[in-house]
Amino acid sequence: MSKTLVFGHKNPDTDTITAALSYAALKQALGFDVEAVRLGTINPETQFALDYFKVEAPRLVETVANETNEVILVDHNEAQQSVDDRAAVTITEVIDHHRVANFETLDPLMMRIEPVGCTATIILKLYTENNIVPTQQNAGLMLSAIVSDTLLFKSPTCTEQDVAAAAILAEIAQVDVQVYGLDLLKAGADVSTKTIDELITLDAKEFDMGNQKVEIAQVNVVDPLDVLIRQPEIELAINEKIASKGLDMFLFAITNILTNDSVVLVLGTAAGKVEQAYDVQLVNNLATLPGVVSRKKQIVPIITPFFE
Amino acid sequence: MSKTLVFGHKNPDTDTITAALSYAALKQALGFDVEAVRLGTINPETQFALDYFKVEAPRLVETVANETNEVILVDHNEAQQSVDDRAAVTITEVIDHHRVANFETLDPLMMRIEPVGCTATIILKLYTENNIVPTQQNAGLMLSAIVSDTLLFKSPTCTEQDVAAAAILAEIAQVDVQVYGLDLLKAGADVSTKTIDELITLDAKEFDMGNQKVEIAQVNVVDPLDVLIRQPEIELAINEKIASKGLDMFLFAITNILTNDSVVLVLGTAAGKVEQAYDVQLVNNLATLPGVVSRKKQIVPIITPFFE
Repeated sequence: MSKTLVFGHKNPDTDTITAALSYAALKQALGFDVEAVRLGTINPETQFALDYFKVEAPRLVETVANETNEVILVDHNEAQQSVDDRAAVTITEVIDHHRVANFETLDPLMMRIEPVGCTATIILKLYTENNIVPTQQNAGLMLSAIVSDTLLFKSPTCTEQDVAAAAILAEIAQVDVQVYGLDLLKAGADVSTKTIDELITLDAKEFDMGNQKVEIAQVNVVDPLDVLIRQPEIELAINEKIASKGLDMFLFAITNILTNDSVVLVLGTAAGKVEQAYDVQLVNNLATLPGVVSRKKQIVPIITPFFE
Repeated sequence: MSKTLVFGHKNPDTDTITAALSYAALKQALGFDVEAVRLGTINPETQFALDYFKVEAPRLVETVANETNEVILVDHNEAQQSVDDRAAVTITEVIDHHRVANFETLDPLMMRIEPVGCTATIILKLYTENNIVPTQQNAGLMLSAIVSDTLLFKSPTCTEQDVAAAAILAEIAQVDVQVYGLDLLKAGADVSTKTIDELITLDAKEFDMGNQKVEIAQVNVVDPLDVLIRQPEIELAINEKIASKGLDMFLFAITNILTNDSVVLVLGTAAGKVEQAYDVQLVNNLATLPGVVSRKKQIVPIITPFFE
């Protein structure tokens, strides 16, 4: 029997990487032969967390069927966000906190999806249900995921369960949530070293909405102008993506982690849908969406109905 | 706020009806405003369990959007097995033990799917996780579901978790599993009073396989001849269904609960797929499949690849 591989979505973020690592650690503690892997480059925020808690990044893979028959998905379920050859393997488990779509199996499986802010919050429950305490390292990684996904508890996706889980994890990890959390977010919000391509791909997800293809990228910043000074080059790169992937729309959300607002840059033939959805006018392809920080809760469900 | 409705699949069986009742009872105990409802006629086996434990059947509904915005699905997730106007309401929770397909949401939800033999086994976990003990009535209903879905622990879908859950539930319900269980199965296996239409619709489910539409009905008997003496009329009724629903195949499994084999009656243009899948020849549209008792584990996953 080959090892079961555990992985999160493409363009991995902190929750996806740490969920793969911490859930693989739980399965190993329960006696299963599993390995955490990743589908893309580690972003600077995640690297900060891995360095802080002295953990190696999971191994990078392009495909999985060449080495295993069984996989466990964390932090995603939609096919287009997953490994390219997913149809060739059996999904035995899914641990996630997103909407469910483009997901289908032949056989029954274990699926644990909860409407909480972060996969780590569900994984901590699974540790507890199995009477296992996460190691200090894994607790630190899971705490990092909650801080990252909830923007230090400021995002509307944050639930009481995430706050409670973070408190338990901070104690095991022996860090001060506010101090460590702001350091972690700032590490992720440093856009000065990012290339144009990195800005629009590092945290990008594709969605099928109605019959149209929409990609939504997001970047966290401490000042949107740090990104907007490069708007002409960014638009060129986005228009190339639209052409090569056949997208109907690309929305790039520049989210201010200090004020909790987003500036969105929207291109593509369906850009008008965003104007309708938020009742705003795009000026120079830009609009400010006050209080919008969550792609999952404040962008995807708001615009989807306008594509159907 | 209107009440959240909790229901299982169309053509309800014992697991679907009792899962709706026992999960609604748990949610009510937790302070939620929910009501169990059903999408079809109560079968004789389920009626036996309801009568034995003195519980009223859930209310019958045809649609749900006329009375609520939110629903909880138990024992199913596929759209074609669910209420017709499901797309008009929000699914807040799914508790199930089947494969996942034709299921999509706009928003994150609570989804608890486990590869166990019976929804009741998962619901008992949810009671335990919430520190609530089922009432004697609900324990009896949940026990009935496990007996029904696992054919008294004989089905390959039965897991150790189902056996363990049944032991706990039998103690709360104050019944002897073997004695009560056989009485329950026999109540369901009495085909003498069933009309032709009841035989092929009471436990029937539709599946999309590849681009084809397949319906699989199952009936439990103590002697297959009790059904096969009516084969000509059954074939007429099945061929009418194939025509009216545009099916590519209809498989009717007549399962002997004493020997744990099934005789299958297969009609439709794709009937040859069953011959390929099981390496058998249909003679007079019939074949015996030794040891096959589970639609979910021994029919659906075996034939599906031959449609793709």
